[in-house]
Amino acid sequence: MDPDVLRRLHDILGPAGVVADPDLLRGYLSDWRGAYQGTAAVVARPADTGQVAEILGLCHRRGVAVVPQGGNTGLCGGAVPDRSGTQLVLSTNRLRRIRGVDRADQTITVEAGVVLQTVQEAADAAGLLFPLSLGAEGSCTIGGNLATNAGGTAVVRYGTMRELTLGVEVVLPDGRIWNGLRGLRKDNTGYDLKQLFIGSEGTLGVITAAVLALHPAIRSRATAWVALSDPQAAVDLIEIVRATAGSRLSGFELMSAQSVEFVLRHVSGTRDPFGSAHPWFALLELSDPMADAPLAQTLETVLGEAFERELLRDAVVADGSTQVAALWALREGISEAQNHEGPSLKHDITVPISVIPAFVAATDDALRATMPGIRIVTYGHVGDGNLHYNLSKPPGTDDEVFRSRAAELARVVYDSTAGFAGSISAEHGLGQSKREVIADYKPAVELDLMRGIKQLFDPAGLMNPGKVLPEG
Amino acid sequence: MDPDVLRRLHDILGPAGVVADPDLLRGYLSDWRGAYQGTAAVVARPADTGQVAEILGLCHRRGVAVVPQGGNTGLCGGAVPDRSGTQLVLSTNRLRRIRGVDRADQTITVEAGVVLQTVQEAADAAGLLFPLSLGAEGSCTIGGNLATNAGGTAVVRYGTMRELTLGVEVVLPDGRIWNGLRGLRKDNTGYDLKQLFIGSEGTLGVITAAVLALHPAIRSRATAWVALSDPQAAVDLIEIVRATAGSRLSGFELMSAQSVEFVLRHVSGTRDPFGSAHPWFALLELSDPMADAPLAQTLETVLGEAFERELLRDAVVADGSTQVAALWALREGISEAQNHEGPSLKHDITVPISVIPAFVAATDDALRATMPGIRIVTYGHVGDGNLHYNLSKPPGTDDEVFRSRAAELARVVYDSTAGFAGSISAEHGLGQSKREVIADYKPAVELDLMRGIKQLFDPAGLMNPGKVLPEG
Repeated sequence: MDPDVLRRLHDILGPAGVVADPDLLRGYLSDWRGAYQGTAAVVARPADTGQVAEILGLCHRRGVAVVPQGGNTGLCGGAVPDRSGTQLVLSTNRLRRIRGVDRADQTITVEAGVVLQTVQEAADAAGLLFPLSLGAEGSCTIGGNLATNAGGTAVVRYGTMRELTLGVEVVLPDGRIWNGLRGLRKDNTGYDLKQLFIGSEGTLGVITAAVLALHPAIRSRATAWVALSDPQAAVDLIEIVRATAGSRLSGFELMSAQSVEFVLRHVSGTRDPFGSAHPWFALLELSDPMADAPLAQTLETVLGEAFERELLRDAVVADGSTQVAALWALREGISEAQNHEGPSLKHDITVPISVIPAFVAATDDALRATMPGIRIVTYGHVGDGNLHYNLSKPPGTDDEVFRSRAAELARVVYDSTAGFAGSISAEHGLGQSKREVIADYKPAVELDLMRGIKQLFDPAGLMNPGKVLPEG
Repeated sequence: MDPDVLRRLHDILGPAGVVADPDLLRGYLSDWRGAYQGTAAVVARPADTGQVAEILGLCHRRGVAVVPQGGNTGLCGGAVPDRSGTQLVLSTNRLRRIRGVDRADQTITVEAGVVLQTVQEAADAAGLLFPLSLGAEGSCTIGGNLATNAGGTAVVRYGTMRELTLGVEVVLPDGRIWNGLRGLRKDNTGYDLKQLFIGSEGTLGVITAAVLALHPAIRSRATAWVALSDPQAAVDLIEIVRATAGSRLSGFELMSAQSVEFVLRHVSGTRDPFGSAHPWFALLELSDPMADAPLAQTLETVLGEAFERELLRDAVVADGSTQVAALWALREGISEAQNHEGPSLKHDITVPISVIPAFVAATDDALRATMPGIRIVTYGHVGDGNLHYNLSKPPGTDDEVFRSRAAELARVVYDSTAGFAGSISAEHGLGQSKREVIADYKPAVELDLMRGIKQLFDPAGLMNPGKVLPEG
């Protein structure tokens, strides 16, 4: 990096704002899983929006590419620099002020580097709920959640990050600040620009703060674990639950037997609630802001109807918080458990809910035809049509042999997804890992418009180059 | 209009697709209130997306400006052509197919010209709910609802049209079709382009169809009418309702005494539920998909707490559907009632909920200082911070004298709104009436980006010119 640019960075940020020590740099140059690796001479750590604006202005004048980075917990390499060593990593980890909580408005205004869990806790302290919830919540940041339009388990009830965002503050690639921090529920005064930045993975500018919507705190909860013969039973069950319980449904997770088997094998302290084999499982959660809402009763009504319609093989309603935690552990342990079985090839897709049964059957068949003995770890958020279609090697296969076929296996999953009118990235984004493959699945006119928008916002192509948009 | 273009339009659309008879044309050339008036040689009425594409392609090649029009019920003149006679009105009133309803997905796919009420009825027939609800629902169209990101009374629970839209099909200004009709709840594969078209009032292309989200049908409902001392009581009350009833709250309408007084005076069959004067009123509605949900009991709990905290002057919970209808009539009659008192100057604004009390006090003061005796008809959707700040002349003032001061009075309302970090158009859009004034309230960088997007999508400026974007 040009020594004059380095000097200017030091002038703007001071010693605490520039990381150049190779030992400290390391954590910024690869993602948390170590799946992507890049290099950079320095990391800039601005402490406020003004400093972000100065840095982007400088980089714009000097032609330096910028890679925004939050908690670095992404799964597609969207926050990792390339290997050229010429890119500047801009970490948001000093932008961590909570600017305000408003109980009447049910809003919280936070800076990009605030950790998701911190926002959840601040909402809780105000007697409210910030419902976004996902595995990485202890380290991922709001900026990253916005950049990837994060999802998670509560989307079925509260929507994705997009639906939870009322306003954003953004520094544009040329260093101008757009203050779009409106805390309004309705605002129809032209194009809704915040929507472009949400989900753009740092390619159009740097989101520095946001006004987020809060919800009433939850005071009652009920959880059930059910065994199912097939995914169709899950689709039918969710229809019954919704018709009866409406928006009380705050979680509906589906898991294949293979997924649960891995958890029981590798995660200590987990145990099978039924003790006999079943092909599929689902975890249902109802919740209500009303204290003492009769949710267990509602759940029993729903499950009773489902038994009558022969949708369930077995069911248990959790009794007390220990049992609730034990059931969620079966769901939340899948990702970790799968790591004990060799490399995990992860695919995060959505299809319309109604086609899940046909999609799963077709995709499983195609995968088994491609690689006999492959172990398919299917689980996900059925209420959103979102399945994590993860793969483990056939027993006895060499790790590297399995990994070498990753692209081929991904194609099988993506082709099937596209055949069922789905999306090849439900909640993980495109980053660097899916930026080329998306070109085969998106209409040409849509890619054209995306490229036009990129060109409009970032004509010099300095914001997170090599991410999201396919070459050409 | 160039006779060759006219001939081509006839070729594309056939006789049923071109309106040139002056008697039939008239209804397309002004809005339903008659507040805006334009001219056009013909109206094109395409019957499918392919025809829309052919028309836009033709207009693109020939430099003909196009004004898309749905039910023509807008309040800002967004669907009315200018007076040049050179613009082509493109009516969606033959795009009225319901392409499909999916119960498991809870989606409906409809064309732009389908009337909102028809969508509500189709959802109902499938045992589901399409929750968008507004005064014009019997004649406004889904295309118009999308183009203006329509709101209404149920936004507090279900969000605006934007939150109810999963995918769109759009014909771009050059005639290319973008098929973004995905029925997915999660899809993070690049910029979310549909968000640009929603709320763009026909300036970026023509939305021809959409996949909309449905919700569980409502089987229980409870309604209350309360008297309040001031808007602060409403803000405190909504906080109590939300904390207890959560998303059961599906309506919270605030009305000034002046608003209700006009209704009682002019709308036959209405009656005052209390019989004594109060300064403010609110209408609360709870609803639930569960049959026999104890909502009246919940409402009584909430109102009991509000009485204890001395927030209420009086309250009544409706007993039976006749009483519910009578209460809603008091709210829904305001617009019509106000017409009996001379011209209505309408302003549709939002502020953060928490500042409503201070905003109303300051705005009322400023209006009365500008025009002593002015009658302020304030009502709206408090849960969204959305107030219709409508004005009637002081008794005895001449209509034209009052109308001549419309711009000045609007400035008073808008300056006050901006001072409280609000929006000068909550749910009506900008159309032609607010396109210039918005330039004084939006950050320059935001207007810049809006103009850049307009230029990108419509470089020749042929899509609904003279709307949304300020000159310059």
